[in-house]
Amino acid sequence: MQVQGFTAAATAAGIRYANRSDLGLIFSQVPAVAAGVFTTNRVKAAPVVLSMERLRSGKAQAILVNSGNANACTGAPGMEAARATSAMAAQVLGIDEALVQVASTGVIGQPLPREPFSKSVPGLAGSLSGSNLGDVARAIMTTDLVEKEAGATVNINGTPVNIYGMAKGSGMIRPDMATMLCFILTDAQIVFPVLDRLLREAVDESFNAITVDGDTSTNDMALVMANGMAGNAWIDEDNLEGIRIFGEALRGICRDLALKIVADGEGATKLVQIKVQGARTRAEAFDAAQTIANSALVKTAFFGEDANWGRIIAALGRSNCTFQEERVDIFFGDVLLVEQGLCLGTEAETRATAVLKQKQFGVTVELHEGSSEAVVYTCDFSFDYIKINASYRS
Amino acid sequence: MQVQGFTAAATAAGIRYANRSDLGLIFSQVPAVAAGVFTTNRVKAAPVVLSMERLRSGKAQAILVNSGNANACTGAPGMEAARATSAMAAQVLGIDEALVQVASTGVIGQPLPREPFSKSVPGLAGSLSGSNLGDVARAIMTTDLVEKEAGATVNINGTPVNIYGMAKGSGMIRPDMATMLCFILTDAQIVFPVLDRLLREAVDESFNAITVDGDTSTNDMALVMANGMAGNAWIDEDNLEGIRIFGEALRGICRDLALKIVADGEGATKLVQIKVQGARTRAEAFDAAQTIANSALVKTAFFGEDANWGRIIAALGRSNCTFQEERVDIFFGDVLLVEQGLCLGTEAETRATAVLKQKQFGVTVELHEGSSEAVVYTCDFSFDYIKINASYRS
Repeated sequence: MQVQGFTAAATAAGIRYANRSDLGLIFSQVPAVAAGVFTTNRVKAAPVVLSMERLRSGKAQAILVNSGNANACTGAPGMEAARATSAMAAQVLGIDEALVQVASTGVIGQPLPREPFSKSVPGLAGSLSGSNLGDVARAIMTTDLVEKEAGATVNINGTPVNIYGMAKGSGMIRPDMATMLCFILTDAQIVFPVLDRLLREAVDESFNAITVDGDTSTNDMALVMANGMAGNAWIDEDNLEGIRIFGEALRGICRDLALKIVADGEGATKLVQIKVQGARTRAEAFDAAQTIANSALVKTAFFGEDANWGRIIAALGRSNCTFQEERVDIFFGDVLLVEQGLCLGTEAETRATAVLKQKQFGVTVELHEGSSEAVVYTCDFSFDYIKINASYRS
Repeated sequence: MQVQGFTAAATAAGIRYANRSDLGLIFSQVPAVAAGVFTTNRVKAAPVVLSMERLRSGKAQAILVNSGNANACTGAPGMEAARATSAMAAQVLGIDEALVQVASTGVIGQPLPREPFSKSVPGLAGSLSGSNLGDVARAIMTTDLVEKEAGATVNINGTPVNIYGMAKGSGMIRPDMATMLCFILTDAQIVFPVLDRLLREAVDESFNAITVDGDTSTNDMALVMANGMAGNAWIDEDNLEGIRIFGEALRGICRDLALKIVADGEGATKLVQIKVQGARTRAEAFDAAQTIANSALVKTAFFGEDANWGRIIAALGRSNCTFQEERVDIFFGDVLLVEQGLCLGTEAETRATAVLKQKQFGVTVELHEGSSEAVVYTCDFSFDYIKINASYRS
């Protein structure tokens, strides 16, 4: 997919490994309205600190992103490296340094080498093309097995508008602010406050509602750049139809990318939707869904294709959600396995187990306490998760 | 070890598997002063509910405990089964039903069959002996690989007093109230308020400071029975020396049993002490230690013998602990690997890696924010954890 005015390029700069694409550049022909959400981890990587600071202007024109090194826990030299590499990009692109967003992903605590950047950034700038966005999506992969892209073209007040998103993420993923890298590019004309709000709403029900391993990264960010080149009627607070259509498309793209992250979770063999409904408040429903989705015992049972509802109710019990055991119903897919806190027996268990044999399924917990609900997406916990993470740095 | 006035017996009652010891009975010749702590999970198994209710009297004379079935999430029939099986024990022992504590561990959500109890309880009562405590310690094992016992004889104001403890626990273990079964028997003469307080203090720094997988069980309990048969001077609020000596011994036994649980954690190959010091408050230090100790990424790195301090600092960053990245020091054993937030380099990393090759080691995080500290014990996350938990019910 292409988005008017956006070009990109990627290359193997040798940041950590040789011959592996690890550096990407995204450029907008004109400065774009930009909004972002960043990790809530108290430890923020240098590129996160720098990008947050720069994004206060609500404007950006380029993104320089690398994999292989997170430039996190690298102190003052890390900040200097982030600034210096962004300056290289600004110089070759001929734009203000403050308009360059930087992002890094990879190993924490290693100094970011500058040589790969000084060698490769000029070449990247020279090979920018509207058809290279997918190359950047591949360059930002770490333990990801597939690149993650999504796109939509919508009609805003009679004008076609393109929205494209890419994301990476496979480990250190949990629902607590944008837990990965995500870049969304659009040629829409949209004012900052609306773009910012729509991004936050979209992130809340997508990237903030997924978990792989319960760990929050130091480097997460989701960034949207809108360069206005579609020339549509401005999407501002008065353009309710524009807000609705653009917002829906943005939410769809974020959800699509988020599900791709969970499905590609480290070692994952199953994609599972955990829905808690009938809760007193959305916060309680979300806490319950998150606790179930993060339970190592629940996740290993999914891997074993075991409809172990006892672990689900035990996880529910240690969450901060109000409920009474004797009112709880639990469904695997459409199969009601637990009614009023009690298992319905062998036949229901056999049918529930059949649901778990699928690659993708849902578990619904009905509390009968109120009318609030929340959804969290998770994956199973497999041998490969251990394998990947016991040897990640070697 | 034997404790005056206490006898025990265990047998293979066939509760879940044939020919596997799964039912135990502990009996005190005289009613004992008794105190207990129970799971904080909102979902409490029937035996927990019944035992909590009965323990309000501060007295108990027998414990009937089974493995193979948790009698949790079993509704009213589960409560009836707990009452009925305890009544069987009361009848053959000739004691008041209210003095029988019941405990169950095993699979959640299966009806507890009564036949194994009615067949085996009379025989158990007939074979009670002071030298059978270890048999009960073996009967309560589920995924445990070894039985867990600890004991001490202390001198209370000139009189020898025996304290013996047994525990089980390997999965669904996390520091949030007594996360396992633990029975402590003593012939000390001690008043209820002191016994109760000393138990809570001991549990806080032992069973509440360990984690295997971050899951809290529906069936946890730690129970202490003091039958007074040692005839020591009463340990009451005025007997400060008695409190000190008995309390120390009780804490030692609880810590010993708790460490045995972590070392025998499902699939564990390493026992790791996580210490967070220099925190503003103990609550913050404990939260930080717990977050590090429960991180799947930290635990898989331990399994891989990788001194991945980046994951430790990332886990610290998502905890509720106040700190500044640039002040944090991290030690693996005695090896300072991270100073003021920065890695000290390859040579330090090599020495830290050597520490991780040991079966047992400590990780210390110094925050330089204050003078509070906390310790949590954890284990690593291995292939066997997945194996055990993907197939637990099959």
